Amino acid sequence: MKPLRIGIIGYGFMGRAHSNAYRKVSNFFDLEYQPVLQAACARDEAKVKAFAERWGYASIETDWRKLIARDDIDLIDIAVPNNLHAEMAIAAAKAGKMILCEKPLGFDSKAAEKMVAAVTKAKVPNMVWYNYRRCPAVVLAKQLIDEGKLGRIFHYRANFLQDWTISAELPQGGAALWRLDVKAAGSGVTGDLLAHCIDTALWLNGGIKDVSAMTETFIKERKHNLTGKVEKVGIDDACAFLCHFNNGSLGLFESTRYARGHKALYTLEINGEHASIRWDLHDLHRLQWFDHRDEGVVRGWRSIHVSDSDHPYMKNWWVPGLQIGYEHSFVHQVADFLKGLETGVPARPDFQDGLATDYVVDAVLASAKSHQWKKVKQVKQK
Amino acid sequence: MKPLRIGIIGYGFMGRAHSNAYRKVSNFFDLEYQPVLQAACARDEAKVKAFAERWGYASIETDWRKLIARDDIDLIDIAVPNNLHAEMAIAAAKAGKMILCEKPLGFDSKAAEKMVAAVTKAKVPNMVWYNYRRCPAVVLAKQLIDEGKLGRIFHYRANFLQDWTISAELPQGGAALWRLDVKAAGSGVTGDLLAHCIDTALWLNGGIKDVSAMTETFIKERKHNLTGKVEKVGIDDACAFLCHFNNGSLGLFESTRYARGHKALYTLEINGEHASIRWDLHDLHRLQWFDHRDEGVVRGWRSIHVSDSDHPYMKNWWVPGLQIGYEHSFVHQVADFLKGLETGVPARPDFQDGLATDYVVDAVLASAKSHQWKKVKQVKQK
Amino acid sequence: MKPLRIGIIGYGFMGRAHSNAYRKVSNFFDLEYQPVLQAACARDEAKVKAFAERWGYASIETDWRKLIARDDIDLIDIAVPNNLHAEMAIAAAKAGKMILCEKPLGFDSKAAEKMVAAVTKAKVPNMVWYNYRRCPAVVLAKQLIDEGKLGRIFHYRANFLQDWTISAELPQGGAALWRLDVKAAGSGVTGDLLAHCIDTALWLNGGIKDVSAMTETFIKERKHNLTGKVEKVGIDDACAFLCHFNNGSLGLFESTRYARGHKALYTLEINGEHASIRWDLHDLHRLQWFDHRDEGVVRGWRSIHVSDSDHPYMKNWWVPGLQIGYEHSFVHQVADFLKGLETGVPARPDFQDGLATDYVVDAVLASAKSHQWKKVKQVKQK
Amino acid sequence: MKPLRIGIIGYGFMGRAHSNAYRKVSNFFDLEYQPVLQAACARDEAKVKAFAERWGYASIETDWRKLIARDDIDLIDIAVPNNLHAEMAIAAAKAGKMILCEKPLGFDSKAAEKMVAAVTKAKVPNMVWYNYRRCPAVVLAKQLIDEGKLGRIFHYRANFLQDWTISAELPQGGAALWRLDVKAAGSGVTGDLLAHCIDTALWLNGGIKDVSAMTETFIKERKHNLTGKVEKVGIDDACAFLCHFNNGSLGLFESTRYARGHKALYTLEINGEHASIRWDLHDLHRLQWFDHRDEGVVRGWRSIHVSDSDHPYMKNWWVPGLQIGYEHSFVHQVADFLKGLETGVPARPDFQDGLATDYVVDAVLASAKSHQWKKVKQVKQK
Repeated sequence: MKPLRIGIIGYGFMGRAHSNAYRKVSNFFDLEYQPVLQAACARDEAKVKAFAERWGYASIETDWRKLIARDDIDLIDIAVPNNLHAEMAIAAAKAGKMILCEKPLGFDSKAAEKMVAAVTKAKVPNMVWYNYRRCPAVVLAKQLIDEGKLGRIFHYRANFLQDWTISAELPQGGAALWRLDVKAAGSGVTGDLLAHCIDTALWLNGGIKDVSAMTETFIKERKHNLTGKVEKVGIDDACAFLCHFNNGSLGLFESTRYARGHKALYTLEINGEHASIRWDLHDLHRLQWFDHRDEGVVRGWRSIHVSDSDHPYMKNWWVPGLQIGYEHSFVHQVADFLKGLETGVPARPDFQDGLATDYVVDAVLASAKSHQWKKVKQVKQK
Repeated sequence: MKPLRIGIIGYGFMGRAHSNAYRKVSNFFDLEYQPVLQAACARDEAKVKAFAERWGYASIETDWRKLIARDDIDLIDIAVPNNLHAEMAIAAAKAGKMILCEKPLGFDSKAAEKMVAAVTKAKVPNMVWYNYRRCPAVVLAKQLIDEGKLGRIFHYRANFLQDWTISAELPQGGAALWRLDVKAAGSGVTGDLLAHCIDTALWLNGGIKDVSAMTETFIKERKHNLTGKVEKVGIDDACAFLCHFNNGSLGLFESTRYARGHKALYTLEINGEHASIRWDLHDLHRLQWFDHRDEGVVRGWRSIHVSDSDHPYMKNWWVPGLQIGYEHSFVHQVADFLKGLETGVPARPDFQDGLATDYVVDAVLASAKSHQWKKVKQVKQK
Repeated sequence: MKPLRIGIIGYGFMGRAHSNAYRKVSNFFDLEYQPVLQAACARDEAKVKAFAERWGYASIETDWRKLIARDDIDLIDIAVPNNLHAEMAIAAAKAGKMILCEKPLGFDSKAAEKMVAAVTKAKVPNMVWYNYRRCPAVVLAKQLIDEGKLGRIFHYRANFLQDWTISAELPQGGAALWRLDVKAAGSGVTGDLLAHCIDTALWLNGGIKDVSAMTETFIKERKHNLTGKVEKVGIDDACAFLCHFNNGSLGLFESTRYARGHKALYTLEINGEHASIRWDLHDLHRLQWFDHRDEGVVRGWRSIHVSDSDHPYMKNWWVPGLQIGYEHSFVHQVADFLKGLETGVPARPDFQDGLATDYVVDAVLASAKSHQWKKVKQVKQK
Repeated sequence: MKPLRIGIIGYGFMGRAHSNAYRKVSNFFDLEYQPVLQAACARDEAKVKAFAERWGYASIETDWRKLIARDDIDLIDIAVPNNLHAEMAIAAAKAGKMILCEKPLGFDSKAAEKMVAAVTKAKVPNMVWYNYRRCPAVVLAKQLIDEGKLGRIFHYRANFLQDWTISAELPQGGAALWRLDVKAAGSGVTGDLLAHCIDTALWLNGGIKDVSAMTETFIKERKHNLTGKVEKVGIDDACAFLCHFNNGSLGLFESTRYARGHKALYTLEINGEHASIRWDLHDLHRLQWFDHRDEGVVRGWRSIHVSDSDHPYMKNWWVPGLQIGYEHSFVHQVADFLKGLETGVPARPDFQDGLATDYVVDAVLASAKSHQWKKVKQVKQK
């Protein structure tokens, strides 16, 4: 057993999700490395203390530079708003720390390029928290695609629909609302939600060649929590884009926080020559599968309850039929990261994969702004 | 083309459903015999006249005995309350008419036995309107079972749930409400709804050996529309029973008109060694199918949209993906009846099949009354 | 009762669907006008004769100009490939006939403009067979929108997914395959399938301002049934577009015949400030409804079984819980057309509505060709 | 913060589920008491050692009597086969320990009565691990019922369907297969699965008056893992029963391990005068809700995604739309037990509630054996 000492920055929603994953992974997965909750860091001393106590972190810091400087930390986990990712990650890389960074990787692709350069130079293990890749149903989809079961791919469509910002009374900025503040987030649903859809798409269906996008900000002004004033809203409330994948298939993506009735509905569908796949986050333990090779009269969409012992990750949990939930995708990501350290085959998505997604995000935003099709900058294939 | 001259008794819900079937069948099915709407019969002259005009019946009668006596009628269709079935059917048989009789066959199995004797003696083609056998999805289920795809059967469960009699203000008896009047209907949900479930079960899974039942009348008194007085309710509002099938499988049946939220939810499920089937009337164009022989990781319940050209009856309708509805089960039943005349292989369920269902209904009612398991009288197998 | 004498051109899929509607409408709806199947017309005498016999048309014609010239015909029904619509419709208008024309109205919007001019000048009742407007669930959606129950609309998305042309062995052109022949059809999925989606959208959500589209032809060459040679495929196999509606909402549309597993899946979803709606053609008797005004803990998407007597059209059919199917949308359209004649308030979509859809189709095709956003030509509002 | 020192007996499926709950509860719930993993106990030293290491238990025991005798243990958790529950629980009670016991409480109701007597005498906090009461959707159902939203209850139906013992090759007895060994389990599906359904039913719908049951053992002989010989199977493979609840509603229960296609499908449905509820374990994060008081045209079954912050327990987890899974029901049970210690209002189901379920189980088995209706012994209401 090798301890892996974690220093986490941020105690919000993601700070909790990551901490829970570190605490659980060794109970359920047999791994050489075991996370040790060494230190939690945030500016507000009282809050980070309470967080550390609740989750069992051995110490706290209020200055992230001090955390990175500590000798007893092996890995820096960056769980803070997007505008802070680059500086922290670059410093951590220089200090020789492994890095797990929240998504999207950079505030924009320029920042992300610097982050990739830093970890490449420092040769430190790195990963981006695109956790939905680790839902067992999505991994099963990946397996089926890799086995060639779908044949030639014609269509890929994904959307991520929420409804939590419809009220004009909701302020922007500050604390849990930083996602509405363009200075902290960089963009709205594009970087926050579509980035997830894009990461999965690149993984399942390969690179995207070009895009035509539209964005909209339905509520033009909101009170800003940091200034106390009503200010122009800088983020995109909704975004949709058409695209061509490098493999010749057509893509259709959409995200919004104005889709009444959907709390966090990430859905994807892939149509291949022989078979099709559908998945949605509101029932993440199921995969929909249609196989045209089934006997004609009994062909139909299958609802696969991805809870059998031969399904990805599932033998590590309970017994067939008993579902896991959202938090487990993070546990799986930690397990895979640790396994990567053990085997020498790094788990992904790493920073370079994160950069690829950021290139698409940037092209989407540029297309929406210019009302024109935009080419997507490509990342060198590994 | 051979005309088959129909004389129908009754102009209610079923009178309409049958008439529509007679009118449509030749547009969609290639058959030697073609129904001719010769006469409609009911006591109320004005109403039967309006009915005949609307549906294109060439003539009317107000005395069913006269209808049966007519030379220009080949087939008598009995679409009236249960207490009238036997007398009419026996007279029609004696007159040498073919008979299509609404379900349940008899007011009770005693009556049904006489009806079977009559048609047997007269050697006239006969059928009972258990139309749900003719839903394409149910026929597909039958095919899969007959091909042995399910293997040994362990479980059969069915229910028929409605909610239209929950209000205590609803009167009993008379016109459209005769189903609440024990003198007209014989029983409540048992003969009206469970009879459908039982007929399908006997067809799909063979005979029933014994039953243990309970019935309940939730609203004890209702105003009677014929007397104008509040009277004791004689029918069963709900009925459930356990049973053993002759093939060793276990059965579970339930019906009620007090299941809030279900308008006409007839569902059935069959669990076999290798595969399982589910169906429900609220989405009657779909069949649910689970096959354990599918590859492990992609096993799942398939939702078959029974609308392909190789699905039962479906090549006669539209194009794949376009659903048919409730009324088409009656069209199919007419088509099959006519085909039976043409080929000499009579379509079923005939009166003897109807009697088999009535035996189960009687055993269920007897069991509920006595609080004991009851053997079911068996019909000789053909 | 006033007879309305129908002369139909074409005996294919749509010829059957319309004929069935004419035959059924008076059985189920109380209307002043009653369709009379006067004549069927097509070039192939043997086939049109067989068709007329099956459906009960009193006579046949093999030259559509003769049909239009007949005095005993009140209404011309055009159920032939798109490239023939304009000539026939213009001639029929000149002859003072009412016209029911299959969709899309014109081979392109230029043709459609001439058709609108012709019926306007002739002042003849006219309608386009966009039948999906008449599914009870879609009409219910319209009612809810018109009552303001959704509030401000943010999103409209629709797609029409099929999978019947995936095989490269499928030829193009001729008979039932004319939809693959650009000379007969004008376009592929855009005019055939998206036109339906657009018509419904314009009805439910108002006009479309501009579009950005992409189209694809996956199989570049197919054998042509009329020439016997392998020829370039001229139609679009798939089409997707982004758009802005005049009311400020965002639209996303997609259609393809390469979506394995979907036979005829027309789905639509509308997200409003207070409520959302979803519908799909594979379960056309259901409407999905989410209302944010419901009490918080029991908020959820409702699956409405649109079969109650207070649902649109449904009191004319069976009893609650019993579903109708695809064909009934045509019956409703005929019923509404006849009601329009009776009341003097013409039913829609009329030719001008059909032209509005053709304008969107043309803009979509132009955008896809030019890789640019295109403005949509607007039809004057009534 | 008060530590609550746990001593657990058993390291199987349930040992893991409980341990996970103890480890997580304090991360997510604010409670005065915090579980401390003090000792794990089992006969196999190597295995219990590995278990203790994996989960963080501070010490081990191989003799459960020694565990119970230890001063540094506050609570004994019994996670072993049913035939061992009584002896351990009675000893623990005598030693003044709190007890959390796996379900069903006793090997039979006789044993359970002694267990109730022991904890009553010793006045120690006690609870039975009927975890499904703690699924947020089930708790929401309870709230709705308690608020009177359903009105008079007419029907309660529940089933628990599995398919893991269909193969005749599966042996009985020993290790994970003790559930097939009548000497260890007492009964088959009745005590294992129906006990869950019964516990929930008593909670949601009150006491059961009488039952009529049937059981079946489909595979009559299996190899016994402990003896190595083929032996008669003593358990019931399937069980179904009818019942009357004390409130006048009708009940229908079924369980089997021969329902192909269902891994762990616990479903329940309740039909009340005004509203109905459905739930199933395969999608445990959803509750189906039908309310007849909804406006007529938009009435429908609502699928409630029970993940909002005002849903039971959910504010303690992630953000709306993100589902939790099976394991969380155990965390909630621990949280409620600890809250009960804190507030002095003991959480339930306690041993007396467990006894009530055992009385129903015994009546069911007796009815199945005698083929007669049986009265259910009632537990005194609190």
